[in-house]
Amino acid sequence: MNLPLGYQYSAVYAGIRKVPKLDLGLIVSTMPAAAAAVFTRNRVQAAPVLVSKRHLEASGATARAILVNAGNANCATRTGEEVANRCCRELAARLQIAADQVLPASTGVIGMELDSGLIVRALPELVEGLNAGKFEEVAQAIMTTDTVMKTASQTVDGVSLAGMTKGAGMIQPNMATTLAFVMTDADFPAAGLREILIEAVDSSYHRISVDGDTSTNDTVVLLANGASGKKPDRNRFQKAVTSVLEDLAQQIVRDGEGARKLITIDVRGARDNAAAARIARAIANSPLVKTAIAGSDPNWGRLISAAGNAGVEFDPTHVDIDLQRTPVCRGGLAAEFSEPDLKTKLDDKDCLIEFTIRGKDTGEARFWTCDFTEKYIEINASYRT
Amino acid sequence: MNLPLGYQYSAVYAGIRKVPKLDLGLIVSTMPAAAAAVFTRNRVQAAPVLVSKRHLEASGATARAILVNAGNANCATRTGEEVANRCCRELAARLQIAADQVLPASTGVIGMELDSGLIVRALPELVEGLNAGKFEEVAQAIMTTDTVMKTASQTVDGVSLAGMTKGAGMIQPNMATTLAFVMTDADFPAAGLREILIEAVDSSYHRISVDGDTSTNDTVVLLANGASGKKPDRNRFQKAVTSVLEDLAQQIVRDGEGARKLITIDVRGARDNAAAARIARAIANSPLVKTAIAGSDPNWGRLISAAGNAGVEFDPTHVDIDLQRTPVCRGGLAAEFSEPDLKTKLDDKDCLIEFTIRGKDTGEARFWTCDFTEKYIEINASYRT
Repeated sequence: MNLPLGYQYSAVYAGIRKVPKLDLGLIVSTMPAAAAAVFTRNRVQAAPVLVSKRHLEASGATARAILVNAGNANCATRTGEEVANRCCRELAARLQIAADQVLPASTGVIGMELDSGLIVRALPELVEGLNAGKFEEVAQAIMTTDTVMKTASQTVDGVSLAGMTKGAGMIQPNMATTLAFVMTDADFPAAGLREILIEAVDSSYHRISVDGDTSTNDTVVLLANGASGKKPDRNRFQKAVTSVLEDLAQQIVRDGEGARKLITIDVRGARDNAAAARIARAIANSPLVKTAIAGSDPNWGRLISAAGNAGVEFDPTHVDIDLQRTPVCRGGLAAEFSEPDLKTKLDDKDCLIEFTIRGKDTGEARFWTCDFTEKYIEINASYRT
Repeated sequence: MNLPLGYQYSAVYAGIRKVPKLDLGLIVSTMPAAAAAVFTRNRVQAAPVLVSKRHLEASGATARAILVNAGNANCATRTGEEVANRCCRELAARLQIAADQVLPASTGVIGMELDSGLIVRALPELVEGLNAGKFEEVAQAIMTTDTVMKTASQTVDGVSLAGMTKGAGMIQPNMATTLAFVMTDADFPAAGLREILIEAVDSSYHRISVDGDTSTNDTVVLLANGASGKKPDRNRFQKAVTSVLEDLAQQIVRDGEGARKLITIDVRGARDNAAAARIARAIANSPLVKTAIAGSDPNWGRLISAAGNAGVEFDPTHVDIDLQRTPVCRGGLAAEFSEPDLKTKLDDKDCLIEFTIRGKDTGEARFWTCDFTEKYIEINASYRT
């Protein structure tokens, strides 16, 4: 992996998790970085989300550090913001930067007080670790029910991008949390960075679904510190950022809790892209579709019915559906296909659903989801206790 | 059960199901009945839904018969409406009534041609059976993955109501289908009957959720034939109809595929009843909430986060949550409670979630759902094949 210039990484076990596994991570840019972030739209927002928003505003969208912990979401607690603020302040003092240059992030159980002392006491070791620390250690520190570490990278026009993410079903500890941090050494202004990130998130993290829930802590951050001295072409940079986020988002879906298959859903021929996205999302969120795929059942009736629930107008008699490139429905009616053959194809770990509305409309959307297995229930019925 | 006067019932095995179990049911009113119906809002609607709508319009909302089959949804097929029309026509001829006096309904696999010959050939036996047929036989004929027969009845002001329903997770054969037929001998005008039914469905069938999907075939029919010669008080009649439908709807949830628990969700203090219903629905549809309850985990963080996804404005710091009447969250923060004690209480087969927003607003809503177990996945990953 080509890591971008001008970043340092460190991770320690601070005692927030019950098990002795890295649970506190730090990413530092050696120079001020332009920063953009996208946060959860949940009405209930964790303290680190609120504090990060405030810091980005106060700093004019620049940042020097991301401080992230697993094991506790720092959400719905009495001392949430106080804890987040104290940790940022103490870290800033050690790094000799302003407190608003630190973006805090947390993932873990909701509604349990986070002891700031654990983090503050771990800061000396954490900061010391920056000299020898590794990108992958932070990527590991943020893992919760993830079964694999998730990273991705790109290079474009002489600049490097490297990202890490966590999330296995978007349903972490108590809930869903997805975190993603992408660092680049591109020289790119903060104003434009936000647009880049929003467009990239829109076709990646906003296009994945494991169980339809959104966490209180979801956070995607993009830092650009200019350490390469290169200004990439805007379009190519957009593509590179999107590509890193798509890669990371797909890794989340593939590692969905209990998932065995990555399902790609392509909708075409809707009135517009937004309508296509609604149909794709309705299919992606349908437990009936997801269990059918788990069972390698070419059950297109569930697909068309799920699409019919999307709240989008379409003529069912104009619908074509293909599974693994095999036509299963033409004009809303059953197509001729060999069920045993298709069943075998559906056993593959990658599954493609194509939902096409015939006509002159060209709205399209791609979504990713995973199959829904007994394992998901097992994980989530017993997570906390 | 006090059956209403003036109705006859019959059921036979017509060979639509693979297994030799009753699969064709008939309900006949000996005199014209006022009829009201509520159908699926899915964009994809099965042929019997389309034909029933047309018949109600043509007949001025009167009906003499309901003809229902299980084993095939008669949806997304080449011959759907032709089949439904032919069956109605042939039955009408035998009963010597107009074809538009027959309301067809189907539940079963989507996308597979329904052989009208099977039904037409079974009609002589079916009609003959009306003399000795039983209400319960029709209730059995409509069962699919239901594990128990579902019926309910009420009497009010000297009139009787009796209802039957099917649905186990609102996810029948290929999809979700819920059917409900309520017969009464009240003398009630067709115009008013529709209002009564809509209000009753709104606080019963529209308030249950097993997996958030809506079928292509969902149908609720209310027939009032006046055979008792009694005109009930409007309000008391409304209550009786609502009570029958609530009873039936709850039976569906309790028989949810793989369900072990009936979960009642009471939301109070929202801006208005519609906002309360949105919050209740978001909680009811959250797989994370449903798996937590399956595991008897008092995980209120998932509850408040699910509510935060409802798209309704509320202040999380004003939220109180109680599980089984035990306070678990006060003002958005953890309340003190004994986790082992509450865990034991949550092992009960009835679970109550109370979500209250403190303040002056009084919007409220009640929803029912079921827990989400491994069994659900097992049933749905292997249904069709």
